[in-house]
Amino acid sequence: MSARQAAVVGLGTTEFSRDSGRSELRLTIDAITAALADAGLSFDDVDGLTTSTVDTSDPSIVAEALGLGNLTFFSTIPFGGGGVCAAVEHAATAVRTGAARTVVMYRGLNGRSGRRYGQGYPDTSGVQYMRLASHYGHLSPAHHLSLGIMRWMHTYGITNDDFAPVSVAMRRHAATNPAAHFYGRPVTAEDHRNSRWVVEPVLRLLDVCLESDGAIALVVTSDERAADCAGTPVVVTAGAQGWTGRSRLMMNYYRDTVGTLPEIAIAGDAIWQASGLSPKDVDAAMLYDHFSPLVLMQLEALGFCEPGESAKFARDGGIEIGGRLPVNTHGGMLGEAYIHGVNGIAEAVRQLRGTAVNQLRSPRHIVVTAGPGTPASALLLSAT
Amino acid sequence: MSARQAAVVGLGTTEFSRDSGRSELRLTIDAITAALADAGLSFDDVDGLTTSTVDTSDPSIVAEALGLGNLTFFSTIPFGGGGVCAAVEHAATAVRTGAARTVVMYRGLNGRSGRRYGQGYPDTSGVQYMRLASHYGHLSPAHHLSLGIMRWMHTYGITNDDFAPVSVAMRRHAATNPAAHFYGRPVTAEDHRNSRWVVEPVLRLLDVCLESDGAIALVVTSDERAADCAGTPVVVTAGAQGWTGRSRLMMNYYRDTVGTLPEIAIAGDAIWQASGLSPKDVDAAMLYDHFSPLVLMQLEALGFCEPGESAKFARDGGIEIGGRLPVNTHGGMLGEAYIHGVNGIAEAVRQLRGTAVNQLRSPRHIVVTAGPGTPASALLLSAT
Repeated sequence: MSARQAAVVGLGTTEFSRDSGRSELRLTIDAITAALADAGLSFDDVDGLTTSTVDTSDPSIVAEALGLGNLTFFSTIPFGGGGVCAAVEHAATAVRTGAARTVVMYRGLNGRSGRRYGQGYPDTSGVQYMRLASHYGHLSPAHHLSLGIMRWMHTYGITNDDFAPVSVAMRRHAATNPAAHFYGRPVTAEDHRNSRWVVEPVLRLLDVCLESDGAIALVVTSDERAADCAGTPVVVTAGAQGWTGRSRLMMNYYRDTVGTLPEIAIAGDAIWQASGLSPKDVDAAMLYDHFSPLVLMQLEALGFCEPGESAKFARDGGIEIGGRLPVNTHGGMLGEAYIHGVNGIAEAVRQLRGTAVNQLRSPRHIVVTAGPGTPASALLLSAT
Repeated sequence: MSARQAAVVGLGTTEFSRDSGRSELRLTIDAITAALADAGLSFDDVDGLTTSTVDTSDPSIVAEALGLGNLTFFSTIPFGGGGVCAAVEHAATAVRTGAARTVVMYRGLNGRSGRRYGQGYPDTSGVQYMRLASHYGHLSPAHHLSLGIMRWMHTYGITNDDFAPVSVAMRRHAATNPAAHFYGRPVTAEDHRNSRWVVEPVLRLLDVCLESDGAIALVVTSDERAADCAGTPVVVTAGAQGWTGRSRLMMNYYRDTVGTLPEIAIAGDAIWQASGLSPKDVDAAMLYDHFSPLVLMQLEALGFCEPGESAKFARDGGIEIGGRLPVNTHGGMLGEAYIHGVNGIAEAVRQLRGTAVNQLRSPRHIVVTAGPGTPASALLLSAT
């Protein structure tokens, strides 16, 4: 059997806010409705749904709320933000193999007015080392990930000042994006240095992502079918997940080294291998930026920079619009909104369609990542 | 790109018991270790994991416990027992598209000594009609599903006596299976009629499945690679999930009819369409038998019998070894063990390899189902 190619043909987003005023299910319904309208498809066309295991609206509830017909494929991907690229890839896989014709990937959360992922909490997941870490004050993702970041900083002589170019670039990109929380509010390196410590000496306030309410949905179908859709198709060229020895949600301190992002490297290697492309073929990257240093570490894990070279790359403007590899042209989760990384996928789709507010000149291939510091995933999306 | 074919090349099971004396993770590790040994593969060969969302051992914990290397694919399937065939199909899809080379599907539970799924509990899932039903005494899966079964009984003039041939056949098959809880303990139609009511007038004690501790793992890889494996390969010819308007975990009473199993029909139609085969090509069926009448209703949903004809089919010996369509030759969940339906998949593998204790004569194609009464899934497995 010859496999089909899969493409994103529809994108729907709600507004991003700090208090949506409606349920996560309602946000999801609004985003899916918009995505199908964008694709020029109807509810009856949908026969598959994918999302994250942490989404509060399970596929059966979403399907019922939308009045969908028969579905033959549904998948939920574990590991929080690490799974969102995989949710698109699983949708693409279903389309490629004929398990479904049209799959909607969705994610809706009241990340500020509802459950706040960034809040400190003692770990109760049954993972003993995490419980142990709780007693030492490691209560939030910022704490969990800072230990690994600090090891990387130590190895390469990197300091918190090296993160300023990331924060500044994300806020500059957000400043011209009307959908962004920080629209019209750029910052300087001085603002970065003056912002308060969150986890000293690793993260300052301006290194830490937003908390947001909102939802995003993407419609994935076959290349044949895409020709009949209203929306410009974006090809899902490759996608992969990444887990390596002792990867955990969140950081596992008991592995051989904590100062790298092997899950991102594995997913990255897999998309290079599957596509036959390499970092030099890529025109932009939407990198999961819950914390600014992880943008730098991902540039190294994906092969855009040699180990230890990413800080210089960012300092030289490499990640800005007009630089070698524009990163998070929407402002990312530091500048636009925290929609668990799905807003990075959405921005890649807009850029490849030529409809982004900070539009690049005819990008061909864009990498998107999800969830460094946890079992992760990555996508390579391409213009038709 | 040309897709590969996927095959089950390894099967591992623990003993089935009422008190395993060890954790669900430990059971799972034991089953996976056995499955890889059966396949003649090592831990290093595994690059993907699939399971149910209700499994307490998430893929990252299982991978760490086994000391696995790098993984590029992991998926968790929602809707409890309804997802177990899909977990094998997702593994097969990963192999077919190259997302992974060797995927292990696993499921481990202490279903008797730990959390007992069959126990009554007030619904707290936020699904309003389920909460409402709780107030009327609908507390367990037996209650939830009986309302739909009763409607089907009413339509076709079926009574509880019609379920005796199912219970008797399952217990007869289990009686010659040393791995079965009811090994050496067959029952008669009279025993069935004398067993106490669980949900009058639908289910008697002998219509209700076991509660068991145990784990099962299956190794899925490509047909090319299968040639190098120790275990006889079984081809994953087709697999599909099924959801229809208002499918829920468990029964949704607010849909147009509650007296059929549309989720099984959708998954069944999809596997017939994908394979080009039809019920007449199938030599046996491993049908999810949490409750005996659902075996009959599935025969109708899958097209083995006309609506309302399944009771006669069973009464005439159609589901027994030697009959037109032997069902659950291991004894099913009524006779062998309740491993959330995965033991049906395991039996199909053994039958197609020619290694079952109640071996059929050279079966070519076997259908397996998961989770009628909930968003469901089905597999069509074939001998090489």
